Amino acid sequence: MALVCLDDFRAYAKRHLPKGTWDYFEGGADECATRDDNILAFKRIRLRPRVLKNVSTVDTRTTIQGTEISCPVSIAPTGFHCLAWPDGETSMARGAEAQGVCYVTSMYSTSSLTDIVAAAPSGLRWFQLYMHKDRQLVTELVREVEALGFRVLVLTVDTPVGGKRRADLRNSFGLPAHLSLQIIPEARQVGAGHQLPIADIDPSVCWEDVSWLRSLTRLPIVLKGILTREDAEQAVGRGVQGILVSNHGGRQLDGVLATVGGPRPGGLGEPWPGTFGRFLPAGARAHTHTHTHTFIHSLVFIERLLCAEHCTMCLGSTSRQHIETVQQRAHTRTHNRARTRLCTQSLLANPWPWSCPVSALPWPLFRPCPCPCPVPISTPG
Amino acid sequence: MALVCLDDFRAYAKRHLPKGTWDYFEGGADECATRDDNILAFKRIRLRPRVLKNVSTVDTRTTIQGTEISCPVSIAPTGFHCLAWPDGETSMARGAEAQGVCYVTSMYSTSSLTDIVAAAPSGLRWFQLYMHKDRQLVTELVREVEALGFRVLVLTVDTPVGGKRRADLRNSFGLPAHLSLQIIPEARQVGAGHQLPIADIDPSVCWEDVSWLRSLTRLPIVLKGILTREDAEQAVGRGVQGILVSNHGGRQLDGVLATVGGPRPGGLGEPWPGTFGRFLPAGARAHTHTHTHTFIHSLVFIERLLCAEHCTMCLGSTSRQHIETVQQRAHTRTHNRARTRLCTQSLLANPWPWSCPVSALPWPLFRPCPCPCPVPISTPG
Amino acid sequence: MALVCLDDFRAYAKRHLPKGTWDYFEGGADECATRDDNILAFKRIRLRPRVLKNVSTVDTRTTIQGTEISCPVSIAPTGFHCLAWPDGETSMARGAEAQGVCYVTSMYSTSSLTDIVAAAPSGLRWFQLYMHKDRQLVTELVREVEALGFRVLVLTVDTPVGGKRRADLRNSFGLPAHLSLQIIPEARQVGAGHQLPIADIDPSVCWEDVSWLRSLTRLPIVLKGILTREDAEQAVGRGVQGILVSNHGGRQLDGVLATVGGPRPGGLGEPWPGTFGRFLPAGARAHTHTHTHTFIHSLVFIERLLCAEHCTMCLGSTSRQHIETVQQRAHTRTHNRARTRLCTQSLLANPWPWSCPVSALPWPLFRPCPCPCPVPISTPG
Amino acid sequence: MALVCLDDFRAYAKRHLPKGTWDYFEGGADECATRDDNILAFKRIRLRPRVLKNVSTVDTRTTIQGTEISCPVSIAPTGFHCLAWPDGETSMARGAEAQGVCYVTSMYSTSSLTDIVAAAPSGLRWFQLYMHKDRQLVTELVREVEALGFRVLVLTVDTPVGGKRRADLRNSFGLPAHLSLQIIPEARQVGAGHQLPIADIDPSVCWEDVSWLRSLTRLPIVLKGILTREDAEQAVGRGVQGILVSNHGGRQLDGVLATVGGPRPGGLGEPWPGTFGRFLPAGARAHTHTHTHTFIHSLVFIERLLCAEHCTMCLGSTSRQHIETVQQRAHTRTHNRARTRLCTQSLLANPWPWSCPVSALPWPLFRPCPCPCPVPISTPG
Repeated sequence: MALVCLDDFRAYAKRHLPKGTWDYFEGGADECATRDDNILAFKRIRLRPRVLKNVSTVDTRTTIQGTEISCPVSIAPTGFHCLAWPDGETSMARGAEAQGVCYVTSMYSTSSLTDIVAAAPSGLRWFQLYMHKDRQLVTELVREVEALGFRVLVLTVDTPVGGKRRADLRNSFGLPAHLSLQIIPEARQVGAGHQLPIADIDPSVCWEDVSWLRSLTRLPIVLKGILTREDAEQAVGRGVQGILVSNHGGRQLDGVLATVGGPRPGGLGEPWPGTFGRFLPAGARAHTHTHTHTFIHSLVFIERLLCAEHCTMCLGSTSRQHIETVQQRAHTRTHNRARTRLCTQSLLANPWPWSCPVSALPWPLFRPCPCPCPVPISTPG
Repeated sequence: MALVCLDDFRAYAKRHLPKGTWDYFEGGADECATRDDNILAFKRIRLRPRVLKNVSTVDTRTTIQGTEISCPVSIAPTGFHCLAWPDGETSMARGAEAQGVCYVTSMYSTSSLTDIVAAAPSGLRWFQLYMHKDRQLVTELVREVEALGFRVLVLTVDTPVGGKRRADLRNSFGLPAHLSLQIIPEARQVGAGHQLPIADIDPSVCWEDVSWLRSLTRLPIVLKGILTREDAEQAVGRGVQGILVSNHGGRQLDGVLATVGGPRPGGLGEPWPGTFGRFLPAGARAHTHTHTHTFIHSLVFIERLLCAEHCTMCLGSTSRQHIETVQQRAHTRTHNRARTRLCTQSLLANPWPWSCPVSALPWPLFRPCPCPCPVPISTPG
Repeated sequence: MALVCLDDFRAYAKRHLPKGTWDYFEGGADECATRDDNILAFKRIRLRPRVLKNVSTVDTRTTIQGTEISCPVSIAPTGFHCLAWPDGETSMARGAEAQGVCYVTSMYSTSSLTDIVAAAPSGLRWFQLYMHKDRQLVTELVREVEALGFRVLVLTVDTPVGGKRRADLRNSFGLPAHLSLQIIPEARQVGAGHQLPIADIDPSVCWEDVSWLRSLTRLPIVLKGILTREDAEQAVGRGVQGILVSNHGGRQLDGVLATVGGPRPGGLGEPWPGTFGRFLPAGARAHTHTHTHTFIHSLVFIERLLCAEHCTMCLGSTSRQHIETVQQRAHTRTHNRARTRLCTQSLLANPWPWSCPVSALPWPLFRPCPCPCPVPISTPG
Repeated sequence: MALVCLDDFRAYAKRHLPKGTWDYFEGGADECATRDDNILAFKRIRLRPRVLKNVSTVDTRTTIQGTEISCPVSIAPTGFHCLAWPDGETSMARGAEAQGVCYVTSMYSTSSLTDIVAAAPSGLRWFQLYMHKDRQLVTELVREVEALGFRVLVLTVDTPVGGKRRADLRNSFGLPAHLSLQIIPEARQVGAGHQLPIADIDPSVCWEDVSWLRSLTRLPIVLKGILTREDAEQAVGRGVQGILVSNHGGRQLDGVLATVGGPRPGGLGEPWPGTFGRFLPAGARAHTHTHTHTFIHSLVFIERLLCAEHCTMCLGSTSRQHIETVQQRAHTRTHNRARTRLCTQSLLANPWPWSCPVSALPWPLFRPCPCPCPVPISTPG
């Protein structure tokens, strides 16, 4: 059957992946309340469409930390891609490069950094890291990614201790024997004997470590996992270049707020330093979701390997069927672009129910995009 | 089994139509959030009934753009009727004429304009059009419908690009070989080789085109697909005669507001120019729904082919069973009239929770309506 | 299995009654939104219990239109009891007399007035009537019930035209051949040839008819079916003695407000003339529901034949098993009394979230009630 | 399968316990609205997590009525433990002692007081009592528990008459022949011949009895079952040392408020006498729940035998498998401690949406807690 939306890819992945792998990608912490809220928060948003705008030519290009990307959607860091696709993170890097978007490589990749760079030499690449207990390792990693042309460091700050994912506990989840972490040298994996490398992360990580990292490199730093205004203000004060508003896809501390929608006392909806990047991952499953997301915030990072898997299959492969699929996506994107401009104008022209700095978006740089592909999206092979 | 409500007709249609046809009629865009909201929004409304009003004689007649109709419910434009009933739009036209209501013929009809007019020569007919890429075709169409006695032009403005209906993509939906668009000459169907004629619609359509259409004809113009006060005000400024508040039955841009109920910042509930027509389709499934609708707004247009199909079977046929069915409906309508007056008085006598200009309705012109039919409504043959 | 709550009796009735009969008793109008709201409205209410009140002796007696009853719960009028139990309304009258509560006989009874009176000669009896098209019949009925010791006339005012109950239409519901209306002489049943006697009711009924009825008799008059403050004020002005706040169990006009709970602009929650009776039926399914009901309003009438059926089986029979069942109920009621007082004190001692004149209730006349019955409630043989 | 959360233990218990026993432990009064609200109220709470706090060392110790416990979670009183585990309350006492938390022994224990004390001689023990009709028995019990080193009396005040648990009525629930109440001498069990000892409780119990109990002993007294501010103020005035905010797990009066969350007019969220203990049981099912609970209130008591059963199996046994299980729990607790501190700091640093005296908590006494256990939690045997 044709795969025409992310839920189709999700169902496809569930059908084809081993249970333990699926559970790992799908799972949230504890009761999965926050994971599910991420989706529901989108469903509660309603758009006010404006009509009779000329949308014959639209352009979804934008810039992210100074670099142009083809549309305000990028790939958030997720680990263990080889669990879902043979060439794992290298495939994802290729797909992101082909689509002209940013791919954030995870420190817990199952492909090596050199392979990832070789797969997509001209793709925009960022690097995500946890504060490893071994600070020397962190230093070496930063030097390595600087040398390999990664453009931004994304420090994940919401994981001092691991989330309790029940399915992973029941499945005794771990990497199969033929896979291993390729970016952290095995000898320095603190939790190597354990199921998950979470033991590598230093639970003492605090704002001083951010300052230390800031002093270590000239790359821009983005903090991933900020959910409160107080912490966002601290981030500004520590000299980082942006935040990724994220609840880790609901996989870390269950019961925290969703990243969009709803009343949020002391939340993130208030005015914001103009040059400071604020990016938002998690939860988008439909085109409308993504559009909504990008209007409220400046950019969306697709989170979860569901999406990664989606991209692995749709964007990343070089086989013939996959090229066709990519063409289909391009076709779909044409339509999306028209619709995107439609919505953008709607939203820019109207005050949004909750305050958000959409007017500050580095947004509408429209250009025509003729895409002829006539056949429907189909499953690869 | 007897068909006693629209949901029964819906179930009947699902049972008898090919899957692809049913999916086309039933489908909404993306996640169908707006399609479903259209129904749910009605379910949230609660009436405050008044009692001990004499309802022995009631009259549901009203006028629409200066013409009297038998009740404030009419038939919104939908395409491809021949998919659901052999004589398609001509049958619908006959039914609407028999019931004394208005039928809006779609530009995407599978019956020809002359057949539709011949089937119901004295019926009140309006014509719906999209802004075709070929403006000469639009001009010729306007001249043709003027000559054929159509009384109002309905310009649909919410479809510069097509909604993504997932089921249609999966089904590769298209017209079967024995059907074709009868109103647009085949040679001028831009998207003729494609599954859907959506490619014919000009994505550059904007307010200037409305002014152009206004200058082209002396027929009243109604814009279909307005959802915001800002656009409604623009419509007034462009000299059109009314709007159809519609979200295209949720088939176009998913995630937009339902057309009734709920809080709507900057919405359409405020006072309105007195002579300007404001009509509302979508979502009504029960008698109470329709009544509610007509009290809040001045008139309801039944949307979706579910309803069209209902009317095709109930109103449109000339066979013996169908005449009986029509008699049944008349009987039901008698009761509805009594109930309608009951409710009308309730609502006129009380402020509605949200502001709406019900007091401005060209409404209660009561007359007796004795209808004896004693047998229950039954399915045709 | 033991029947320990009304839902158990409901399930029992569904299992044993013919489908058409069950559908008639269970059915609501159109989409049953109001029928279901009646239940849901109770579920949304939360009590604030007070503790450490001496509840060793409690008394649930109260008065209704000047007559003492054993507890503030009585039997609302419902028709066609013989559909559910062989001796129909006479059984219900016996049960109500045994429990010391009021039974309102329906004009659409399948037992005769003389049989009902003979079955429960000392029971408190009220009589419900519709405004029949034949006013002479109404006059004769009023004279007859005056002579037979009925104490109050209950005029139902929410049925000028009948509700559209879909299941009844599908089932072509009507009384079976061996049953007939016993109170209205057959020769004067306007709708005799039809399935339901609804055609007997005059759709022209209005406030003048209330005044006419008021002039016809010295019995107190209670209007059943009032849902708005405006109509309640009219009722006071017309000199009637009380109202039954009812939406006809959701069987009449679907989509109207539930009778308890929720915000109700212009509703019935405001202060009220002190001597004017305000009674409330519908929806109570659990003991807590009934208690809640009686605190908010002065008295509950149990509506729907579900409850009637319950009472028919539990209260009405004189067979040995039924006597035991009645003893059980008495035992249960003892507990309820203790709990009732507990709640009463809680509520009287605290302002209720919405304003209601509980402080004006002719309430706590406590007396001890020792009931020993040790065996669990069981279904009658 | 591994048991990794309370719901797993719940499912395990349901699978292994006889239906009547399971129904007794699981059941709520009437429609179980309050029982279910207790869970739902937690699910509605959302945390605002703070990040980049050093959580490498945390300490969850606190004090309760002057005694230190290892974490702010203790075991609320529940009866009939031997129904679920052979050595019943003695097992629970051992488990609580091993974990360094408080165990409140129920007056309806199926183990004797001396056995309970012998099983956990150095555990912190409180005693729960109902106001028995036989005041001499109450006096003797108080003397006995004083002598046995119980530190606090917990008087349950929400049970003057018993809740109507439908499943228990249907099952004719009672203790099996081989079990009996061990704390109340059989000769003085008023309701000995009945299914449940509820008949022993004096329905006349009132505030004067609290004063009498206060005069009888020098032990601190905590009232269990207070849900309103008015009653809490009365408690302060009667000289007791604390209250347990409880709705009896929804097993007593159905339809009362949940113990956490939601708007509560005249509720318990306001400032409070500083030295007065306020404890809250009921509903916590996930780690996050418990944490949330402890931040809003000073301490959580785990209620229901589901939890008791959980503890019986996890904490209470001395068999080899059980020791392993306890080690697992300790491991889990390590993680919880880190997370707890994380949350604590978040919440202490931010105003909570509803007012609560978290700042008054006798809280963060941090100490390191190294726990190595690497294997996942598994079911015993």
